Amino acid sequence: MTEHTVKSYGEELNHLTAEVTRMGGLAEAQVADAVECIARRDAPLAQLVVGRDERLDTLQVEIERKAFRLIALRQPMAVDLRHAVAALKISMSLERCGDMAKNIGKRALILTEAEPMSALTRSIERMGRLVQSRLKDVLDAYTASDVQRAINVWSSDEEVDEHYNSIFRELLTYMMGDPRTINACTHLLFVAKNLERIGDHATNIAEIIHFELTGEEIISQRPKLDVVAQ
Amino acid sequence: MTEHTVKSYGEELNHLTAEVTRMGGLAEAQVADAVECIARRDAPLAQLVVGRDERLDTLQVEIERKAFRLIALRQPMAVDLRHAVAALKISMSLERCGDMAKNIGKRALILTEAEPMSALTRSIERMGRLVQSRLKDVLDAYTASDVQRAINVWSSDEEVDEHYNSIFRELLTYMMGDPRTINACTHLLFVAKNLERIGDHATNIAEIIHFELTGEEIISQRPKLDVVAQ
Repeated sequence: MTEHTVKSYGEELNHLTAEVTRMGGLAEAQVADAVECIARRDAPLAQLVVGRDERLDTLQVEIERKAFRLIALRQPMAVDLRHAVAALKISMSLERCGDMAKNIGKRALILTEAEPMSALTRSIERMGRLVQSRLKDVLDAYTASDVQRAINVWSSDEEVDEHYNSIFRELLTYMMGDPRTINACTHLLFVAKNLERIGDHATNIAEIIHFELTGEEIISQRPKLDVVAQ
Repeated sequence: MTEHTVKSYGEELNHLTAEVTRMGGLAEAQVADAVECIARRDAPLAQLVVGRDERLDTLQVEIERKAFRLIALRQPMAVDLRHAVAALKISMSLERCGDMAKNIGKRALILTEAEPMSALTRSIERMGRLVQSRLKDVLDAYTASDVQRAINVWSSDEEVDEHYNSIFRELLTYMMGDPRTINACTHLLFVAKNLERIGDHATNIAEIIHFELTGEEIISQRPKLDVVAQ
């Protein structure tokens, strides 16, 4: 409690966002290494990725605790509340990116035992690089409080879906052509799905940053096309 | 703002938990209907499930806004803060259960166009019923503030994984036996994965309830077996 009375509110908030930035760096590294261990069939690296995930879980719990305490004790209003809430929500998204990276690491371990499927692996590597760069860009936007950069990430989210759909078709063709590869291919399918979900988190983080910095939902930036009943 | 000065803190908190309970009812119905539309190959029901998901998204946004405002304006301490945080986190979990149900609905629509795979569909239906009952039980625990019931849900989480693993093997056998079914089987595979994730959310909600009611992590209830480096 002393900490809270000694430090200024601004200091505490800066500390919180710095921790999120640090967590972002770790999550980015986990995703990069997860892609790498699939691309290189690198079992020791996959083990590392799986083992390091706990660090992200711990950081998330710490950030969450601090964010709620800050909100409850300091009664921040408007923009300050948005900063604290954004830190909390981004840490949640990053923790889940870490879970995806860990899952990819586990599947990489299984895949090193299977026959190499070079063409497929290269497609997944390309998708991985794209997702990785989206995560990097959105974390840059967070660090720089750059709303335009966040909008750019958010606007280009179809690219990942296109990669995913094309890999899905590639995997189907592969499995039908050689049913012995089905088991390995389902693991690659989940790797691609996990990458797609990391891409979704990058989009989600872009939305959080937009609301943090402007107080408005990013959705107002483009007309909503798919209107669903109710 | 008037609302906040007129209502007592207790009233506001009750209102928040009531909204989470209501959201829980909706999420439960969405999951039940999602399982149903897979089991019965019911396209109109699947359409309904997909369309109704937006309702859960809206509720989540409202609950989140209210929870943060409550925390920031009322400065709740200790147990009250835990109640508000629990409401917020459970609503986030329920919103994601809704996303899974919607995804299952979308896949059900695709599957009605494919050849029926009765044995597989029945396995998935059984898994669906199990996941559905876990979600129901944990929401009962929330409504009744029943920590023991939450612990029961949390302790039985391997059952879902066993179902998933057995369906995974069943699907592999099916695909290898008849490669023309591969496309449909991959959709069923994702349906099973989505159900597994809903089961994980039930576990997660059990953890949130445990912390809300006791102030302690549920993990202390059983020794942690898989210790990972770092």
